[in-house]
Amino acid sequence: MQITHELTDSAIGLLSGKNIAFVASLMKDGGPQITPVWIDYDGQFILINTAEGRVKQRNFQRDPRIAVSIIDPTNPYNTVSIRGKVIEQITDGADDHIDRLAKKYLGVDKYPFRTPEEKRIILKINPDKVFTISSE
Amino acid sequence: MQITHELTDSAIGLLSGKNIAFVASLMKDGGPQITPVWIDYDGQFILINTAEGRVKQRNFQRDPRIAVSIIDPTNPYNTVSIRGKVIEQITDGADDHIDRLAKKYLGVDKYPFRTPEEKRIILKINPDKVFTISSE
Repeated sequence: MQITHELTDSAIGLLSGKNIAFVASLMKDGGPQITPVWIDYDGQFILINTAEGRVKQRNFQRDPRIAVSIIDPTNPYNTVSIRGKVIEQITDGADDHIDRLAKKYLGVDKYPFRTPEEKRIILKINPDKVFTISSE
Repeated sequence: MQITHELTDSAIGLLSGKNIAFVASLMKDGGPQITPVWIDYDGQFILINTAEGRVKQRNFQRDPRIAVSIIDPTNPYNTVSIRGKVIEQITDGADDHIDRLAKKYLGVDKYPFRTPEEKRIILKINPDKVFTISSE
């Protein structure tokens, strides 16, 4: 078993694959909150797609600190846990991005849960601290 | 799909089953941290077994606020997300408890990763806010 503080190939595989990630944000009172999300990695930043007004989107606007954790569902000894910051909230291209995530996770061309009034947002996350466990 | 703020049977099933839970604690600077853990439910409190000196154990000693999230690996539309507090850290019975968790998760009678110097601790969590999504 290997423990490293780098985004190893194993960690990048977890961030890029069809895995559910868990993200923590901070509520107004400073307490933690977690939600499961789809996840993406662009080679440098971790990307999450949410909608304006959601609890975590408002939380990150107030305090950009975030934690992200993923385990390999086929091998719980492959995990990556990250602490970082949401360095940008991007609306440009966010609709196309959620469609690409729907393709990856659901195999469909269009995100099927969109509501008429929702405005999608990409949360761009810089991974400051990485903790990877790999069974290889 | 049902969204409730109760520990429904579906939520209790997730807490009691052989599922990996993700727990968030607060670092000294107030930033969030997440780790995957084994999970247990005693009918009233959520129980996590950790060891003295681990990051999250020290974090909860400083600030007891916690978030816990689980998804059903066979159906990602069954999830429970909880915010609460670690109301007690219990050493009494913690060795037997980690053995019971090893039975549940690994099918073995004794927790196989114990190190000679480690002191196990049960984190007893009161669920203050519950958010359950159930596909049923």
